[in-house]
Amino acid sequence: MSELTVYTYDWVPEPPRGYVRDLRIRWALEEAGLPYKVVGVPFKDRGAEHVAHQPFAQVPWLTDGELSVFESGAILLHLGNRSEKLLPADPQRRNDAVQWLIAALNSIEMATVPWSIFIFYDLKDTKPWEFFDGWVTARLDRLEPVFAKREWLAGTFSIADILMSDALRLLHRFDRLAKHPACLDYVARATARPAFKKAHADQLAHFKASSAG
Amino acid sequence: MSELTVYTYDWVPEPPRGYVRDLRIRWALEEAGLPYKVVGVPFKDRGAEHVAHQPFAQVPWLTDGELSVFESGAILLHLGNRSEKLLPADPQRRNDAVQWLIAALNSIEMATVPWSIFIFYDLKDTKPWEFFDGWVTARLDRLEPVFAKREWLAGTFSIADILMSDALRLLHRFDRLAKHPACLDYVARATARPAFKKAHADQLAHFKASSAG
Repeated sequence: MSELTVYTYDWVPEPPRGYVRDLRIRWALEEAGLPYKVVGVPFKDRGAEHVAHQPFAQVPWLTDGELSVFESGAILLHLGNRSEKLLPADPQRRNDAVQWLIAALNSIEMATVPWSIFIFYDLKDTKPWEFFDGWVTARLDRLEPVFAKREWLAGTFSIADILMSDALRLLHRFDRLAKHPACLDYVARATARPAFKKAHADQLAHFKASSAG
Repeated sequence: MSELTVYTYDWVPEPPRGYVRDLRIRWALEEAGLPYKVVGVPFKDRGAEHVAHQPFAQVPWLTDGELSVFESGAILLHLGNRSEKLLPADPQRRNDAVQWLIAALNSIEMATVPWSIFIFYDLKDTKPWEFFDGWVTARLDRLEPVFAKREWLAGTFSIADILMSDALRLLHRFDRLAKHPACLDYVARATARPAFKKAHADQLAHFKASSAG
């Protein structure tokens, strides 16, 4: 087995702590019980070596021996191929996990991340807000019956749930799941898992330690 | 080999024609030389059976024998596992294709699709426009050196290029690649491929035929 290393920033401001996407990777690694280390790279000075691993000068990326992988969704797919605890072997369940992972990235986050821009930049009092807030409602209205009928997206817990629940956490942070109780229960269920709790606490400790350094 | 069927709407209004995401699936199938058929489902009345295949009541979805797959990104990954013309077997190149496919979905389209909302809904004269237009510029500035150095994202043409070039076509439609010549050349290179041309013409013919019906 080659060595797994997760790269994240050495420091971030307070608001994104607990939400930086290395959390997704830590969570998956904890679920799978795969050993790994975490390396901090400069937040303030992102040089050519950073961009060589992550072309958008963001985090996280993962190295697995000689292989370097960026994009949290791609890293989770990569880890899924290393552990059936993350990606089931049964073809139907595997298909469910992959399609819902992509749905979290391209149908849910495509609505939720722009929505969050309006919150973070205090832009709710503008004309486009109505469209973007309505987009989130439309997506949640479609997810609600899905979660009313199943505990996890692929039958058993998988990387799809890591991505989907983490995407929905961004809404829950601003109490935006209040009218969608099945979505809210799903996020509560996911974040109650010991692997999430450890990953979350480890990320907070990582950023706290570096800011104190 | 099980039978492949692509499901798309039976009709759409003029503006999305040539951009509906079944195009990505048709394109991949043409590249791979895999036989398939296309079935139209009602645009105006999307019932429970539609939602059973596509939980957000959108298109496309693909059936491969008993398996039903939604999300264009997930369908392309599924087809990639059926043809090395779509997803190279070499581990490094395969990794490149998967990470860039996810980047197209979650780093590029997350910026470009919201940007297009401002265009389609005539919202450019609002305060949030500055952020969303700047987001697109920031992404293109990062892609430009990537395409200056390589013809295709994974070395050879792959599903990553189908997704990335189709995402960038949405910008090119509104002349938004004019200041990023390497991105513009990349879209020109991708859309010059015979498989794209056939897929595009077939989609236009499909919607034209149904509107005349």
